Amino acid sequence: MLKFLIAVDGSAHAMNAIGAVAALARAPAPLEVVLINVRNDPIYYAELPPDALQELEAAVLTQQARVLQEAAAHARASGLTVSATRDPSGTAASEIVRAADDLGVDQIAMGTRGMGSMGSLFLGSVAQRVVHLAKVPVLLVK
Amino acid sequence: MLKFLIAVDGSAHAMNAIGAVAALARAPAPLEVVLINVRNDPIYYAELPPDALQELEAAVLTQQARVLQEAAAHARASGLTVSATRDPSGTAASEIVRAADDLGVDQIAMGTRGMGSMGSLFLGSVAQRVVHLAKVPVLLVK
Amino acid sequence: MLKFLIAVDGSAHAMNAIGAVAALARAPAPLEVVLINVRNDPIYYAELPPDALQELEAAVLTQQARVLQEAAAHARASGLTVSATRDPSGTAASEIVRAADDLGVDQIAMGTRGMGSMGSLFLGSVAQRVVHLAKVPVLLVK
Amino acid sequence: MLKFLIAVDGSAHAMNAIGAVAALARAPAPLEVVLINVRNDPIYYAELPPDALQELEAAVLTQQARVLQEAAAHARASGLTVSATRDPSGTAASEIVRAADDLGVDQIAMGTRGMGSMGSLFLGSVAQRVVHLAKVPVLLVK
Repeated sequence: MLKFLIAVDGSAHAMNAIGAVAALARAPAPLEVVLINVRNDPIYYAELPPDALQELEAAVLTQQARVLQEAAAHARASGLTVSATRDPSGTAASEIVRAADDLGVDQIAMGTRGMGSMGSLFLGSVAQRVVHLAKVPVLLVK
Repeated sequence: MLKFLIAVDGSAHAMNAIGAVAALARAPAPLEVVLINVRNDPIYYAELPPDALQELEAAVLTQQARVLQEAAAHARASGLTVSATRDPSGTAASEIVRAADDLGVDQIAMGTRGMGSMGSLFLGSVAQRVVHLAKVPVLLVK
Repeated sequence: MLKFLIAVDGSAHAMNAIGAVAALARAPAPLEVVLINVRNDPIYYAELPPDALQELEAAVLTQQARVLQEAAAHARASGLTVSATRDPSGTAASEIVRAADDLGVDQIAMGTRGMGSMGSLFLGSVAQRVVHLAKVPVLLVK
Repeated sequence: MLKFLIAVDGSAHAMNAIGAVAALARAPAPLEVVLINVRNDPIYYAELPPDALQELEAAVLTQQARVLQEAAAHARASGLTVSATRDPSGTAASEIVRAADDLGVDQIAMGTRGMGSMGSLFLGSVAQRVVHLAKVPVLLVK
């Protein structure tokens, strides 16, 4: 049996936190999972020859496919049902929240910081923006 | 069936997010819930007469008891099993994380901002500090 | 002679940072200073007797006057010309930025965090909001 | 004559803000300026051919030189004395603060967000980290 600590302060947000945990408690297993990775558009340098830019774009696409493949394998090995994957390009937080809206998910789960982050002091800016933009609860994991 | 969107980027944090969702999927209902409210120690003013300070402290305690009572009623009405409540005083984020450690909870759930927050632009500083300090996943709810 | 390090990245913000330093370099001494302290409205507790609330409000006003007096003394001892003080109540960041607009100041200076802050990990939320809301450069001091 | 608004709250940080403004007021013009740009190490992709990587690295270096040149021209046109430029690679905030320490500067000035930032809601993470790490006052400019 999972144990949750819910912090309350009389605010509507705190009451909604209770509601989100209650939704988890009511849901019959198993959960359905969609995985998303947002690839960065390669940074444009005026001085970069066109053939190097094409090779860079190809490498970014290959890397994104590999990241999603490895994540799907890990999710399935953990007993999760992966119903789909998404591979947009653009601004990470906006694309994650857009996909959450499109798919009508109940929660977004993500790491507190990703590969690009350079320190451990601050909540990653992608996580911060997703929490700000998302309509659904966000589960932040270290 | 609940649907989760998990954002991945090849980092260990993202893999841990998958693991946290898998733990939810594996857990048999129902969840056990502990509610916590951290009361502020009343601000000390050199000029405040002792009797006024006593009345202030009493009002803070009464308010905390009411907040916890109302939250427990809401949680039970939502179908949750509330196994305990906690009412420490001190710094909100530190006390929430200390209770999470003591209790060995699997997740902390909380609003993104509480009553004291004055804007909607920023992730509340209590939520930010809990995410920073907590060893377990934190579910942030609007 | 003061030495400044200006970080640049080709953005308009960086060019504006150069402009702000150039404005300092061009200005003839002395600087004019306005001091501001924003007092919190006392938190309202339903259970607090009216006489205790009145004593609390009086203590808050006395404390604000003392804070401004001590700051003005320190500023003058440091050789600054203090042309005025401001003592609004309300939300700290909004009142600071409103006063900056009214007065047409060239810069806002403030500590990175104040008395109410409970840790040293994060930029204080008041400072964060002032930087977000202010139209003029903000000098953050530890 | 420049006008400053200094926000005070009885804390040592606020008193230091007064001290930083007083240091500006006492300093005889002109100011000395060092410009710094930190180039990102190109992201490594396993799939990127070596020749494309070399072209990418060359483009990054060319861009950094151009950014510093344009900033120096703008600073001099604004009447500032640029005594040096710095062009490290690495993590932006760490390199900026390291240079500030090496050079013994009195202030760091920078934009609140740079080219890489994708929104206007949050203080840029580079600015946030510089404020956190720096020993000297940081002037944040929009």
